[in-house]
Amino acid sequence: MNQWHYDEGLVRRIEHIAIAVKDVEASTGLFKTLLGINPRQIETLPDEHVKVACFELGGSRLELVQGIGSDNPMSKFIERRGEGLHHICLEVEDLPETLRLLDAAGFPLIDSVPKPGSSGTRVAFLHPKGCNGVLIELVEQPSGA
Amino acid sequence: MNQWHYDEGLVRRIEHIAIAVKDVEASTGLFKTLLGINPRQIETLPDEHVKVACFELGGSRLELVQGIGSDNPMSKFIERRGEGLHHICLEVEDLPETLRLLDAAGFPLIDSVPKPGSSGTRVAFLHPKGCNGVLIELVEQPSGA
Repeated sequence: MNQWHYDEGLVRRIEHIAIAVKDVEASTGLFKTLLGINPRQIETLPDEHVKVACFELGGSRLELVQGIGSDNPMSKFIERRGEGLHHICLEVEDLPETLRLLDAAGFPLIDSVPKPGSSGTRVAFLHPKGCNGVLIELVEQPSGA
Repeated sequence: MNQWHYDEGLVRRIEHIAIAVKDVEASTGLFKTLLGINPRQIETLPDEHVKVACFELGGSRLELVQGIGSDNPMSKFIERRGEGLHHICLEVEDLPETLRLLDAAGFPLIDSVPKPGSSGTRVAFLHPKGCNGVLIELVEQPSGA
């Protein structure tokens, strides 16, 4: 394992937790009651083949994610494992540098270069086989955010 | 679904995310590199049959949890599903009142009354079958915290 900024930390915070669900409208009703808040929005993202409800929770978010169309990764996940926790997203300061360091440290990357996320962010996924079975998304906010 | 404080929200924040691991020391090395920080501590909790490493992440925590001894729930989880995301913990203001409301709304509870958690907290688990397959722990901080 390589050495880096242990003083300050590369990861700023848990940006969101994503839950795979079969029916985002039904699950939104459930989580509205559970959390005692309304979702910020329910959004369809055709390019990513998902429909997402976002709940803001003290600086983090909880996302309910339903796959849409045939042959999408979210529905495949549910077929294999059932509904439940799908991935966590961690905010980093410098995504390309983080990916470079993690690659050098031997972490298997799904995305070796950042790809565009929502609202001007850049994102990349790490492979769960290198993270104790946890699918981890890294996000970098747009500069100035 | 019943009506309650949608204005303010019952849940304050994501208190922690727990990851089931086979070997907490090995996984701590991995997550130190990944997160760029040292864990606050590695603790053995004999009553709960677990060994836990806690990483502080911007107001939330990431916990790596290893079962100890025979016949503990964490090892059973790993046997069944492999290592990975185990549960999320949400902080609420008033745990007994939250449990009363959730019970009335039809949520299946694992703990219908709060039980003692670490550092003077009170905790209770909701059954994953009522929460889209997600095991959810609720925590209330000691009064004055």
